[in-house]
Amino acid sequence: MSKEASRARFIGVFDQLVEELKEVLVGYNMPQEAVDWFVKNLDYNTPGGKLNRGLSVVDTYCILNKTTAVELDDEKYAKVALLGWAIELLQAYFLVADDMMDQSKTRRGQPCWYLAEGVGNIAINDSFMLEGAIYVLLKKHFRNDSYYVDLLDLFHEVTFKTELGQLLDLVTADEYVVDLDKFSLDKHSFIVIFKTAYYSFYLPVALAMYMSGINSAEDLKQVQDILIPLGEYFQIQDDFLDCFGTPEQIGKIGTDIKDNKCSWVINQALSRVNKEQRELLDNNYGKKDDVSEQKCKDLFKELGIEQVYHDYEEAVVAKLRSQIEKVDESRGLKKEVLSAFLAKVYKRSK
Amino acid sequence: MSKEASRARFIGVFDQLVEELKEVLVGYNMPQEAVDWFVKNLDYNTPGGKLNRGLSVVDTYCILNKTTAVELDDEKYAKVALLGWAIELLQAYFLVADDMMDQSKTRRGQPCWYLAEGVGNIAINDSFMLEGAIYVLLKKHFRNDSYYVDLLDLFHEVTFKTELGQLLDLVTADEYVVDLDKFSLDKHSFIVIFKTAYYSFYLPVALAMYMSGINSAEDLKQVQDILIPLGEYFQIQDDFLDCFGTPEQIGKIGTDIKDNKCSWVINQALSRVNKEQRELLDNNYGKKDDVSEQKCKDLFKELGIEQVYHDYEEAVVAKLRSQIEKVDESRGLKKEVLSAFLAKVYKRSK
Repeated sequence: MSKEASRARFIGVFDQLVEELKEVLVGYNMPQEAVDWFVKNLDYNTPGGKLNRGLSVVDTYCILNKTTAVELDDEKYAKVALLGWAIELLQAYFLVADDMMDQSKTRRGQPCWYLAEGVGNIAINDSFMLEGAIYVLLKKHFRNDSYYVDLLDLFHEVTFKTELGQLLDLVTADEYVVDLDKFSLDKHSFIVIFKTAYYSFYLPVALAMYMSGINSAEDLKQVQDILIPLGEYFQIQDDFLDCFGTPEQIGKIGTDIKDNKCSWVINQALSRVNKEQRELLDNNYGKKDDVSEQKCKDLFKELGIEQVYHDYEEAVVAKLRSQIEKVDESRGLKKEVLSAFLAKVYKRSK
Repeated sequence: MSKEASRARFIGVFDQLVEELKEVLVGYNMPQEAVDWFVKNLDYNTPGGKLNRGLSVVDTYCILNKTTAVELDDEKYAKVALLGWAIELLQAYFLVADDMMDQSKTRRGQPCWYLAEGVGNIAINDSFMLEGAIYVLLKKHFRNDSYYVDLLDLFHEVTFKTELGQLLDLVTADEYVVDLDKFSLDKHSFIVIFKTAYYSFYLPVALAMYMSGINSAEDLKQVQDILIPLGEYFQIQDDFLDCFGTPEQIGKIGTDIKDNKCSWVINQALSRVNKEQRELLDNNYGKKDDVSEQKCKDLFKELGIEQVYHDYEEAVVAKLRSQIEKVDESRGLKKEVLSAFLAKVYKRSK
């Protein structure tokens, strides 16, 4: 099946889930305008991204069960895909809120939800409802499965960890109050692992594992020990490309320097500067003009951050490969699950 | 034990729970400033209210188990009280967000959290974390109990229902765009039942029932069939007092008319007006000045809304009493649980 066809089948499940959620509200006799609002909230905020997280639940499930998506009948496919959509709903919940907290203007080529006509601060409650939808769907489709409570615990744990990462990010890197003393590589590591790695890398695999009955504490630990550093690597790559990638490469114009982001790049620079160089960063990082931004970029080049990145990348990839090689497959876990993830991240350009 | 002493013991459990939550973050090696922020968020937003919802979990548990709080040892007491604090955390989650959506200025005698020094929109993520704390605590203390999954389902269901009520309220009654055509008694009923009754009335009792092993579908239905109309009555009383109570009676100055609230009072009025009276409301309801407000109040008096309220109150209380009288106690449920709630609401002035 082509990539487009897989995507279309996955999106087909979303439309079905929206219908189910709508029926729940209609069943409560909720007035039509509020039902319509909720449907619009779901449609506007949930699909429309790359869907990597959601699709990787399906991919992982197929690898673990030695099958392909094409071979899954519609009922089975829909159940796996639902777990994928649950991650996409979780992400939608975070993004709607993040955009408000960051005062972002656009998301996925359209105005951020809070800026959409007539929405405003209602977006806060809408974000709550995107999260709420996860549990409505899980209950409807998994309540009678032995691992239902594990799914709930997993979503709660990952949600809370993501919120912790977001909190540290927010208190560390205020867009307008620049204080580089607040930054550190340890904080950067905490932020990217908690804010991104758990929900983007560990969650999809863990969900597919539960549904496949491969859910021993040992196996969950094996994948976590690989996927968390892999997720950290993914975000470091993202930080690196934001500064050193061309707009053609990364499909957008990087703004981390101007936005005073606690990025891997600035933290590596801070650990290498002399007194004058530090002063240059204090005076130019987080400033909104192109000249200041260029001064930071020039200094990063001078400090050899590109080489630091390439060395880091080669080292982390070698270590991940060796870890994957050692994975114990005796209880049904497959190395391929992890190598597939690594292949998607290694040397990507966007 | 005096009311003050019970309250003090209940609050003592909260301090313990904050310590536990703090330890979770410290266990993740979260940097100190973020741990401190979370503790401040918990302390600022969770206690400080009347704690009726939380305390009623303890009261209900005691009635169901024919005991008193004094007789519960500290371990047992803390476990019941935790369920009470879980409701208070849920309420804190909603209130932090509601205050942002309503652009409120103060809450419980202090600035709203989003207006506190340095907080701003970070309050959105903080509200998420108040909800997240519920599931951290439930997992730690109830994971091995047979009814753990029921507690999770119950919190999810009630949370989602509350969000539905909030959504309908938000799309029905914009503070600045007055359109009385959007109001109706049916919508009012949906809003108050979903936004208030489930989490304030049904949730505390259902939690105490699960912990007491009195959790058959029949018994949960018996209490729901009484507590939901009781919660609706409570909110209608609140709406009535906002308009007709004196500031001395209700401890605040009612602002529902000026705020264009979809209150029981305006909906009763709308169902009784002639053409001129309707015009008066169209021109004056939701206006921010005292003269317009007084015109609405005068019309409500003219329409006899006070008598409508008193008739409603007598009828609903008579019906609830008769329902409580018929409650089947054969599986361990106690009528006293419900009559205690009714007694707290009936003829209260604030």
